[in-house]
Amino acid sequence: MQTPHAQRQIYRENLDSATTSGVCDGYLQANMITLPSRYAFDFLLFCQRNPKPCPVVDVLEAGQVNPSIADADIRTDLPKYRIYKDGILEQEALDLKGYWQDDFVTFLLGCSFTFERALVEAGVSLLHQEMDKVVPMYQTNIACERAGGFEGEMVVSMRAIRKEELDETIAITSQFPLAHGAPIHIGDPAEIGIQNINHPDYGEFTPFDNEERIPVFWACGVTPQFVGLKVKPEIMITHAPGHMLITDQKE
Amino acid sequence: MQTPHAQRQIYRENLDSATTSGVCDGYLQANMITLPSRYAFDFLLFCQRNPKPCPVVDVLEAGQVNPSIADADIRTDLPKYRIYKDGILEQEALDLKGYWQDDFVTFLLGCSFTFERALVEAGVSLLHQEMDKVVPMYQTNIACERAGGFEGEMVVSMRAIRKEELDETIAITSQFPLAHGAPIHIGDPAEIGIQNINHPDYGEFTPFDNEERIPVFWACGVTPQFVGLKVKPEIMITHAPGHMLITDQKE
Repeated sequence: MQTPHAQRQIYRENLDSATTSGVCDGYLQANMITLPSRYAFDFLLFCQRNPKPCPVVDVLEAGQVNPSIADADIRTDLPKYRIYKDGILEQEALDLKGYWQDDFVTFLLGCSFTFERALVEAGVSLLHQEMDKVVPMYQTNIACERAGGFEGEMVVSMRAIRKEELDETIAITSQFPLAHGAPIHIGDPAEIGIQNINHPDYGEFTPFDNEERIPVFWACGVTPQFVGLKVKPEIMITHAPGHMLITDQKE
Repeated sequence: MQTPHAQRQIYRENLDSATTSGVCDGYLQANMITLPSRYAFDFLLFCQRNPKPCPVVDVLEAGQVNPSIADADIRTDLPKYRIYKDGILEQEALDLKGYWQDDFVTFLLGCSFTFERALVEAGVSLLHQEMDKVVPMYQTNIACERAGGFEGEMVVSMRAIRKEELDETIAITSQFPLAHGAPIHIGDPAEIGIQNINHPDYGEFTPFDNEERIPVFWACGVTPQFVGLKVKPEIMITHAPGHMLITDQKE
């Protein structure tokens, strides 16, 4: 296994642009959202008010490109980025040369890879991992707490958990407040505004036996991207889905 | 006992300007810091990076005067305020009429009244309360995490705790992360840069028996005021010490 530093060097040189899922196991990975500084207070306040979908693990102030949780350059050391203009995806890029502005503020948010690893180590069955699929994600009717122009409904991820593993799943994920923490809903998808669990808004659905498993929902790090884009900032940059920053911090 | 709403009405009409210590027992009280919006991101980030001295319980965005945790007007409903200009105390005031600006952002931070009440209810002896004195506070050499222009050392409060009540004191205060949480230091004051425990920088010292009690230090809500003033903002407003916002939230 590469060290996080060596792995990031590979991304820096654009030698690899695959998902970071399973890469440098045991090290914290983080979602990234970059915005011009005039949005920074409202966005940080949105995170402060909505810690379950938006657990802040690091903030790079305007002019800073090196996180405190990784000896990295945020402009080059992720495998793939997405550049949005006026709320619309303009393109994906392997680095941010040519896009970087001195007034950019970058937010790094915890991600569910952390608690998934803890669940698997405890023997909890995660279907999407066993089937090698992306976890299914859904828009809900759960309103986030508004901050400035940032508002909208929470996006959740769903994992169908074996009924006998439910208590342990709740207990384990509760220990990771910086990785979305305890579930926000268990059971009937309709109660949080999900009409058809077979058709996620993002990711892939894996069929499961309703007698054996129960759907469990967690606040999802897609929420701040979704909410951020609704503000239509002239430019907003994120990691490409599944292509996180690998930090130097042990989980 | 007055309801918080009725008590705030008394302050609104400037009929009382005494400390809120012991007033509306059982309701959360909050420190207040108000700054022009151009300082808001850096200050919120400072709080996010230093949650023990700066536990954010509410933020009023520019243009807002009503907290979410109290049906109050932040400009009138505290008993006494302090107005600082360029980092220097200009005056105390009973309301903020004549000072309020549309770009003011207000931060409400948890305060130690909450955990003191829990300690007293559990039978823990608090000398300063028994002697009816203000808790002693000290500058330390513990550096806060910097954010923008906001930087400096932590201010702590000290309570001399009976040795047999130490474990319980730690356990109880740990349960109140929004009221400074667990102690940050126990024992030798010199280890955190306090040269003379008999001479606090703020508040009053109460002598205690070193055989019987041990000094216990908590992160203090004076820290953000101290750090804020070093930035010398053209205007900064706080509650007067001990004259908090009484909220509608039960502790």
